[in-house]
Amino acid sequence: MKAIQAALLGIGTVGGGTFEVLNRNSEEITRRAGRPIRIVTVADRNLEHARKVVRDRAQIIDDAFAATQDPQIDIVIELIGGTTVARDLVLSAIEHGKHVVTANKALLAKHGNEIFAAAQKKGVMVAFEAAVAGGIPVIKALREGLSANRIQWIAGIINGTTNFILTEMRNKGLSFAEALKQAQELGYAEADPTFDIEGVDAAHKATIMSAIAFGVPMQFERAHIEGISHLQSIDITYAEQLGYRIKLLGITKMREQGIELRVHPTLVEADQLLANVEGAMNAVLVQADAVGKTLYYGAGAGAEPTASAVIADLVDVTRLHTSDPEHRVPHLAFQPEEVRELPVLPIEETVSCYYLRLSVSDETGVLANVARILAEQGISIHGIRQIAAPAGATRTDVIVLTHETVEKQVNTALAAIEALPAVHGAAVRLRVEHL
Amino acid sequence: MKAIQAALLGIGTVGGGTFEVLNRNSEEITRRAGRPIRIVTVADRNLEHARKVVRDRAQIIDDAFAATQDPQIDIVIELIGGTTVARDLVLSAIEHGKHVVTANKALLAKHGNEIFAAAQKKGVMVAFEAAVAGGIPVIKALREGLSANRIQWIAGIINGTTNFILTEMRNKGLSFAEALKQAQELGYAEADPTFDIEGVDAAHKATIMSAIAFGVPMQFERAHIEGISHLQSIDITYAEQLGYRIKLLGITKMREQGIELRVHPTLVEADQLLANVEGAMNAVLVQADAVGKTLYYGAGAGAEPTASAVIADLVDVTRLHTSDPEHRVPHLAFQPEEVRELPVLPIEETVSCYYLRLSVSDETGVLANVARILAEQGISIHGIRQIAAPAGATRTDVIVLTHETVEKQVNTALAAIEALPAVHGAAVRLRVEHL
Repeated sequence: MKAIQAALLGIGTVGGGTFEVLNRNSEEITRRAGRPIRIVTVADRNLEHARKVVRDRAQIIDDAFAATQDPQIDIVIELIGGTTVARDLVLSAIEHGKHVVTANKALLAKHGNEIFAAAQKKGVMVAFEAAVAGGIPVIKALREGLSANRIQWIAGIINGTTNFILTEMRNKGLSFAEALKQAQELGYAEADPTFDIEGVDAAHKATIMSAIAFGVPMQFERAHIEGISHLQSIDITYAEQLGYRIKLLGITKMREQGIELRVHPTLVEADQLLANVEGAMNAVLVQADAVGKTLYYGAGAGAEPTASAVIADLVDVTRLHTSDPEHRVPHLAFQPEEVRELPVLPIEETVSCYYLRLSVSDETGVLANVARILAEQGISIHGIRQIAAPAGATRTDVIVLTHETVEKQVNTALAAIEALPAVHGAAVRLRVEHL
Repeated sequence: MKAIQAALLGIGTVGGGTFEVLNRNSEEITRRAGRPIRIVTVADRNLEHARKVVRDRAQIIDDAFAATQDPQIDIVIELIGGTTVARDLVLSAIEHGKHVVTANKALLAKHGNEIFAAAQKKGVMVAFEAAVAGGIPVIKALREGLSANRIQWIAGIINGTTNFILTEMRNKGLSFAEALKQAQELGYAEADPTFDIEGVDAAHKATIMSAIAFGVPMQFERAHIEGISHLQSIDITYAEQLGYRIKLLGITKMREQGIELRVHPTLVEADQLLANVEGAMNAVLVQADAVGKTLYYGAGAGAEPTASAVIADLVDVTRLHTSDPEHRVPHLAFQPEEVRELPVLPIEETVSCYYLRLSVSDETGVLANVARILAEQGISIHGIRQIAAPAGATRTDVIVLTHETVEKQVNTALAAIEALPAVHGAAVRLRVEHL
């Protein structure tokens, strides 16, 4: 059968990996897809680098827009990243009737609604398995594998950089700054790591999973985002003593009043599989009504793992491109007319358990006051522990673990607790999830 | 759009779960599939039970063959189990142009080649996500999610009954017989547990995964199958002391000379995710060249988890039934003409590390003799440990861990070792996998 012709936009790390894997495994992939899939055009501004990778195996151009308009191209693979030129390129490809495969989570989280609407109108597919959790086929699991279920919540380690840093902080007792430095030296963190360490990357991915799990539009602008740059080693230590590990989780939950969509460092019980996902690996845990809990684990980044997802999409698009658009897998898992406007709840309305660390004067009555204030806010205490103060110290740490509480009640209680004369400075507040 | 009409054959545990979940989540499923999916006919010999479950929500008949021939039916769901009547029913459904969804691993492992050939000829789909690892969408991951890769090996905990028994043996120090009794009382093991505890059920599932991972026919009759009924608590204890846990794994590997396909109790390093899959849960670990390791975890059995997979197949078939057969996902992941006759290697030709337990006289020179014999067979020793004998005992246990070795060399070495005057009885031999 005639080969499917693809244009690859951007031959950086993932682009290079995609080109290599597609060539190396072309026989295997053709045996599966039923026809060859060929990258016939590579567009990159750095022609010299592109030539080094591609050699004479494809046409090399520097104008990516030419590829999106080329009548010979069936599928456009967008791997240049960013949300400006990438958006224009994807929309141009759709406008010209091309199917699109992209790994660009920022683009979809921010402009997915516009892009999917355009694709729907033109009857083309926009596939994005590589946008979440790299090589783990979790988009496919959510959209197709769990289609019988009401998905109730998702909690995922979906950023390898931060998971690597947290693993190093715990295993080696490093500070955040030390662990970040090490991650940068080893290539696990970029020179400007802001997007990763502040949770923005994880929020892009959580936004996408939220949309396809619940059949709602992308609502990135409403996501609550906390990173790990303010996380202190002492809280990792205390959490460990209490039987927890701290992970940066992307969480989305269906609640009666709306959807929760939040990224933050989270205490997870140490014997949970998710707590044992180490280093730069990713894992996504899904709770759904019929199947219960399922977990998907693997490499969340890197040239070839991400290429694996990009190429799986190429094979899917190749299989489905002859079918009528009404019988394809809908972009957001639900038929376009069935996507619903369910609001993301403000963080004050979300429900979680909490870990609170207070620095208090080592004197009687403090715990009683803290417990009273929590009770006044209707916050049920799971445990409260005063850390033994070193000899001669006048201050000590108190750790409170709460049962499930609405966040705004915690806010009110903490304001009152922080106003106590025996409580010094701001409390440290982390969320705890029982997964 | 017009509803898809399905007939459900067999309304036992999984059938009942499927009927219930499809009704309960019909709105959600229709929003995804783009049209309603309705079970309009239920066939079961026990009409009274069927009426209790179904009430007036579908037609109830006792002749399943009538359903396979009914022109109104689009999809036949085979959930009666077994390999005789089920085979006839599935072939009849195919012959009458119906798509088939089945959870029947025994049927596919034994008659899959015949069934898929018939389906191919008639241009219909036979979907079987529920046949392996219950609700975990691992068939979809292998056939579609990892389509870019050369899959190198798969190792899975794919039988919940035996994993429950092994978990109880380890956590509570029970013997196999005690743990089995408990599993039966709790409903995790059947009255006749042979298929589960002897590894046959796991071998059916490993056979199916092997075929779709490597693009080869089903070769169940060549699988090497060892269960856990002979496993002794002492080996679980020793394994634990050495940093391993014992799991019943279904393993399939691509080797240069052919395919390995084997089910047996296996020592797995205790810090591996697979070692920490507890109770009746399942997990499948896949090693592939581009993506590396991915793991899929969830409930491997039960009414609703299995129903989740059955219904996911119904949605898939609903989506794909209008597409031309050449553009569907091939039954064995590879296009039918690309399925290759790669032989399953005899167990003697397989490669593994080994755990050997010898009962020896507590005298000097025994270890030296054992080490010499292993060396003569070219078997490299990872570690050898003599367990301290209780005071007054004249015999003691010696544990040997080997590096990777071809099984036949282990056989030769063990024959020589067992012939040593200081070695008593048969050695215990377990395989060790570094996953």
